[in-house]
Amino acid sequence: MIENTFIHENERVDDLQRKGYKIIQDKNRFCFGMDAVLLSAFARAKENARVIDLGTGTGIIPILMEARGYGREFYGLEIQKDSADMASRSVKLNALEDKIHIIEGDIKDVSSRFGASSFDVVTSNPPYMIGQHGLQNGNDAKTIARHEVLCNLEDLLRESARLLKPKGKLYMVHRPFRLAEILSEMVKYRIEPKRIRLVYPYVDKEPNMVLIEGVRGAKSRMTVEPPLIVYNKDGSYTNEILDIYNN
Amino acid sequence: MIENTFIHENERVDDLQRKGYKIIQDKNRFCFGMDAVLLSAFARAKENARVIDLGTGTGIIPILMEARGYGREFYGLEIQKDSADMASRSVKLNALEDKIHIIEGDIKDVSSRFGASSFDVVTSNPPYMIGQHGLQNGNDAKTIARHEVLCNLEDLLRESARLLKPKGKLYMVHRPFRLAEILSEMVKYRIEPKRIRLVYPYVDKEPNMVLIEGVRGAKSRMTVEPPLIVYNKDGSYTNEILDIYNN
Repeated sequence: MIENTFIHENERVDDLQRKGYKIIQDKNRFCFGMDAVLLSAFARAKENARVIDLGTGTGIIPILMEARGYGREFYGLEIQKDSADMASRSVKLNALEDKIHIIEGDIKDVSSRFGASSFDVVTSNPPYMIGQHGLQNGNDAKTIARHEVLCNLEDLLRESARLLKPKGKLYMVHRPFRLAEILSEMVKYRIEPKRIRLVYPYVDKEPNMVLIEGVRGAKSRMTVEPPLIVYNKDGSYTNEILDIYNN
Repeated sequence: MIENTFIHENERVDDLQRKGYKIIQDKNRFCFGMDAVLLSAFARAKENARVIDLGTGTGIIPILMEARGYGREFYGLEIQKDSADMASRSVKLNALEDKIHIIEGDIKDVSSRFGASSFDVVTSNPPYMIGQHGLQNGNDAKTIARHEVLCNLEDLLRESARLLKPKGKLYMVHRPFRLAEILSEMVKYRIEPKRIRLVYPYVDKEPNMVLIEGVRGAKSRMTVEPPLIVYNKDGSYTNEILDIYNN
């Protein structure tokens, strides 16, 4: 049973349609989107893997990866105290405290906290936008989730390279307009891009997301996967998107 | 009229279906493919642009770009004497000697020949394969066209960066398995990737080509274009491919 005091004002509880899991979200904060769902389906982790999600927000990615049977132990790092608290309550709500640990902390120095080569897998759905481009107002919760206010791509890759064991894997979702920067920074930090998939809203439109797998210390050679197309021409979801949501 | 001695044994003359242009090809050498056609349609050059094609082979790319009305003056650099001779004869066959100049020479030192900042546009359909992977035999004409025997990606980008004027453009077609290397080397040589398009044989298959536009000295932000799909499910060409070939 959910106690009343457990869910705060402005929050709602959404059913994840997977193992009965639920997630708490706050309409005034960043709510998870299709990018998190696609990343959790694109990512892979062995049964005994130790996984950390950098900038976990609501905790959606570790919860969905656990639901898919990936990984043994998850850490979700979140810099915003209220988000971290909300994610912790979602973990409790699903009785996952033994498997998923939500930690309040900063991506910029996370490797000094956990130590080098301490994870098999890093996942991240980081802020997409550079600086505060096009923004009027300051550092509210949504701004911090969407814009590189508190950490940038280079911080994320530098810390991921330190956290990952050799041949450990980074899974990230990002925006295609930054693809050259992302791939070249990954190469610089020796997280070799090995697999990417572009997500096109329609078959005749530009992609609006890119899913990326990097492997620490791997050789240079990558696979670009078939296009992931979200909508049919009539606006309904494609079979592949329905499969990802339902399986 | 084509004199008999103008076309060598083993050679054939193909109609390009464009302004009445023809091209000489040798079945024992590298014959142009869809990649060259797609590159010449993806590339752009202003009416007064000075353009160089690095590793021009049959001369197909400058001939097709001239046919599309792009550019004022073209150079086609080719290291293989017999290929350069054949390309020169194709240029003569189309009476384009005033606009297209085929030069026998090496990509590795082309910038010392033409000087820095001497071109508005560089095009290239370079060898795709690294070294001589999977090869039994040596340096025949096809091997040199397909494998990085005589020059590699870094040579191409270094020389392109020197040849291009500031804001000059590089257009290249390559294989997606090298995308991370290509984009990161382009960033290193300050030819910023600005536009890429992935070519998927079928809508549910991995891409087998990538078209890339880079701009010397531009800022980091790129467009990934809608997928270019070659075949319909029934194996016929898609409308977009037919448009590219016919318009």
